[in-house]
Amino acid sequence: MPVYQCVSSAGLVSPDSRARIAREITRLHCELTGAPAAFVNVVFSEYTRGELFTGGEPSQNSIIAAEIRAGRDLETRHALLRELGGIWNEVTGQNEAEVLVAIKETPAENAMEGGLAMPMPGEEEQWMSENRDKLAALGWHVSE
Amino acid sequence: MPVYQCVSSAGLVSPDSRARIAREITRLHCELTGAPAAFVNVVFSEYTRGELFTGGEPSQNSIIAAEIRAGRDLETRHALLRELGGIWNEVTGQNEAEVLVAIKETPAENAMEGGLAMPMPGEEEQWMSENRDKLAALGWHVSE
Amino acid sequence: MPVYQCVSSAGLVSPDSRARIAREITRLHCELTGAPAAFVNVVFSEYTRGELFTGGEPSQNSIIAAEIRAGRDLETRHALLRELGGIWNEVTGQNEAEVLVAIKETPAENAMEGGLAMPMPGEEEQWMSENRDKLAALGWHVSE
Repeated sequence: MPVYQCVSSAGLVSPDSRARIAREITRLHCELTGAPAAFVNVVFSEYTRGELFTGGEPSQNSIIAAEIRAGRDLETRHALLRELGGIWNEVTGQNEAEVLVAIKETPAENAMEGGLAMPMPGEEEQWMSENRDKLAALGWHVSE
Repeated sequence: MPVYQCVSSAGLVSPDSRARIAREITRLHCELTGAPAAFVNVVFSEYTRGELFTGGEPSQNSIIAAEIRAGRDLETRHALLRELGGIWNEVTGQNEAEVLVAIKETPAENAMEGGLAMPMPGEEEQWMSENRDKLAALGWHVSE
Repeated sequence: MPVYQCVSSAGLVSPDSRARIAREITRLHCELTGAPAAFVNVVFSEYTRGELFTGGEPSQNSIIAAEIRAGRDLETRHALLRELGGIWNEVTGQNEAEVLVAIKETPAENAMEGGLAMPMPGEEEQWMSENRDKLAALGWHVSE
């Protein structure tokens, strides 16, 4: 966690744009939440013509869903929503009227990475420190 | 929001059936919740043989997940579940024993459309009215 | 419900491995929660190269998300997370450092199977018993 799911019309986002969006979202998430980059997943998927409808009509909208650990304050969540829309608009050129951005919250105790229960928001550094040996054995790069 | 995700076996739902299901779900959501049609997304995806298992065996079940803003009363949510199953059964002919329907609730404050934080359930008209100019600039058709 | 979603890199999991993972997850869920096997769905999907990024870089991690009815105690949820990671590692050989496992909880009242509202966790037997005729008519095999 987090997992950012970006769903868009086939062909809208080039491979280069995906890489750029992934870097920008990772940077944004780390800046806003203090979580380490190694936690941040961004996954892209496409739908083909006739698979998405908005208002009952075929649509080419994009849907970005951020699955994050629960507990970020409203200011952080709203900044996340705004900036996600901004990144998407800047990289793809798609009008923000055609983008739905949503956050889904999961309690930290409901997620496990590398066989370890995830830390609560704000307790990442302590968690990384306490699990340094295990994480190193797993091949994670834990900065000092 | 909402986003209705319809996952079914490849070939079960024709393009025409998709369009009809999308129109029916959009109408249903608006009738039951009072939300404007422009908010309603319906997305279809297919799995291929051997990608879904039920009870440990290969299966051709369908899964419909409605991601809606939190706060609808139980009566509305149960009507939504029942009617979704009914629409699916009527259009595809698939037996309701083979359909799982679920609602996932997201707080309105966790969603943004057109760069605007979403209104609470029941506050859609006021929100549309307050944001008329911004929505019009974004190309949304806000009815009087 | 539950729905176990297993997302992995194209080609990582063979059809035989999928079948085995599905059986193991179904057994695990029933053992840990007492829910009947007929409730358990496991769905596999693949992403292709360049669709997943972790820490801003292309990645071949796997993401397993268990969508379950809300109300299982923490011990059960943590056992579920640990065992899911273990099953995945054993069958696919993928290192647990490359696997994110998460549980998403949905209230039982927000799900419907076979046209029937789902029982609360722990009330499955009573529910199966009360709805035996309806379930039989739907073609479900309800054990005595």
